[in-house]
Amino acid sequence: MALDEFALIGRYFRTAQLERAADSAAVALGIGDDAAVLQPGAGQQLVISTDSLLAGVHFPEQYPPAELGYRALAVAVSDLAAMAATPLAFTLALSLPQVDEPWLQAFSRGLAVAARDFSINLIGGDTTRGPLNLGVTVLGQVARGQAMRRDGARGSDLLCVGGPLGDGAAGLAVVQGSDLPPGLSLAGQDYLQQRFWRPQPQLALGQLLRGVATAGLDVSDGLLADAEHIAQASGVALHIDAARLPCSEALGSWPELQQLEWMLRGGDDYVLLFTLPAAAKPHISQWRAAGHAITIIGSVHAGSGVLLDVGKGYAPLTGERGYQHFRSLDD
Amino acid sequence: MALDEFALIGRYFRTAQLERAADSAAVALGIGDDAAVLQPGAGQQLVISTDSLLAGVHFPEQYPPAELGYRALAVAVSDLAAMAATPLAFTLALSLPQVDEPWLQAFSRGLAVAARDFSINLIGGDTTRGPLNLGVTVLGQVARGQAMRRDGARGSDLLCVGGPLGDGAAGLAVVQGSDLPPGLSLAGQDYLQQRFWRPQPQLALGQLLRGVATAGLDVSDGLLADAEHIAQASGVALHIDAARLPCSEALGSWPELQQLEWMLRGGDDYVLLFTLPAAAKPHISQWRAAGHAITIIGSVHAGSGVLLDVGKGYAPLTGERGYQHFRSLDD
Repeated sequence: MALDEFALIGRYFRTAQLERAADSAAVALGIGDDAAVLQPGAGQQLVISTDSLLAGVHFPEQYPPAELGYRALAVAVSDLAAMAATPLAFTLALSLPQVDEPWLQAFSRGLAVAARDFSINLIGGDTTRGPLNLGVTVLGQVARGQAMRRDGARGSDLLCVGGPLGDGAAGLAVVQGSDLPPGLSLAGQDYLQQRFWRPQPQLALGQLLRGVATAGLDVSDGLLADAEHIAQASGVALHIDAARLPCSEALGSWPELQQLEWMLRGGDDYVLLFTLPAAAKPHISQWRAAGHAITIIGSVHAGSGVLLDVGKGYAPLTGERGYQHFRSLDD
Repeated sequence: MALDEFALIGRYFRTAQLERAADSAAVALGIGDDAAVLQPGAGQQLVISTDSLLAGVHFPEQYPPAELGYRALAVAVSDLAAMAATPLAFTLALSLPQVDEPWLQAFSRGLAVAARDFSINLIGGDTTRGPLNLGVTVLGQVARGQAMRRDGARGSDLLCVGGPLGDGAAGLAVVQGSDLPPGLSLAGQDYLQQRFWRPQPQLALGQLLRGVATAGLDVSDGLLADAEHIAQASGVALHIDAARLPCSEALGSWPELQQLEWMLRGGDDYVLLFTLPAAAKPHISQWRAAGHAITIIGSVHAGSGVLLDVGKGYAPLTGERGYQHFRSLDD
């Protein structure tokens, strides 16, 4: 590849919008050396997560590159929210079939908007010629011992979610041009499309949950599959009351069975699912008053697995629990 | 994908050989949650580098999976050596066209051998179905302000390399089954093949250079291209004396012009290239006595660019300087 193509790609990623999206003293050395150097705050631990996104697996083959840039970073940052961490920096490993200037311009713009929204700086990565593949590694920090893990849920805890469920799957139906229900307004379509392309990692909520929640994660594989992760890691049973699951007005346009299916198994919602000691219940109304759409959807009990009540009492689940791509070592 | 395939892939990567390759107190939380948590030592900064490797770009389409596993980690860890950092942990983002048990077994074994050799633990990542793509992010630590950067070379410094040059390119010729010179012994072929598949990041040398070297990096793109990186970052001219370039006995089997070409432009050597104040010259013989094959190959001067003496005095370079794949944001 000719040298001018290198210079060209650098022009899109080595920008102030990406390298200095956040006013962070943590980046001691950014892009341009063999590696970047981070200086975590005093008493802080580093939180690290890696995700890769492939066309046809994690997003439709037909996509707007700017939205893809936003979504790639948002999905990765959601793992920091799920640990109650504060974002610091990220790296990008990008494989591209060819140098396509309009694509690079749009993609890097979407990425930069997300970097600003989540206060996170690009500190390195690389770009290679190959089938489209986006690898994002995010780094955050959290005070020592304050990370929100999956293994602390205890019997009598409350099970809560931080926002509506099922919108990710409904949003995918909208962006894929599926048949839509007649009652879904244009505003509703737009809302769902945004929920798919611009998920909002619940960073502020994660930080409120530090030291209060006993366990937590972000709903990426689907409520049931992710609840199973908490149940397994904590060695408890989770009871979920289907009647309590929070549903957006837009999702409410679909038939009830479809709503339920997507809320339970849809995935891609990127809201936090967490457990709270019953004594922490008074916090919930304070957090709601501060704008966090928290809903109690169930409770924690001795036992194992996820039990769902769809109107006939709690029963254990059988069969497929959610969308599961190849495998995540982080799951 | 069926659940048993998930469990199957996990079996290869969630092993003691990979998760606890190093006796490291730094990993506060490893694989299994939304993200990993690292606790850097007191006064330490985190060093982070991301690399991706694609078949046909970074390694031949025909490859032994165990060797690929070793090489993928070695190449990434070399960026930590180039910063004078100590390895802590790494993540792996793996795209695979299908679940292939013999492949996974061999690849994860090679990866585990490298993890042991470099004392580094696997802390997360993910695996997706797609064209083969290996994304490795390595994390290391270095005392505050002690990272070896590219921008500190000053006029009158010495320019040194930490080992032989050109072996990476000659090794590639061997593994690709190219015509080999008649004088190259079987032992020589084996040496070069190992140099290609199992490059040895110069971690110990990097740590010796902390606070002594004024600038440094690892030779991955080729001596001239990488020297240019130091010259540019430091705002100096680098003079290289071709007659001093260190050449292995095996490489010496090729015609002299081919040797020179590979030593200058071959890349993939993963030896350190660094600058030392002239006053540090006494260190060199101590380091050599300790087993580090350091060679002074030139010097630093006011000016810009890389000047090469091939017997007729120092002259600036023109044209292509080394192997350059698409682009690295870390360059």
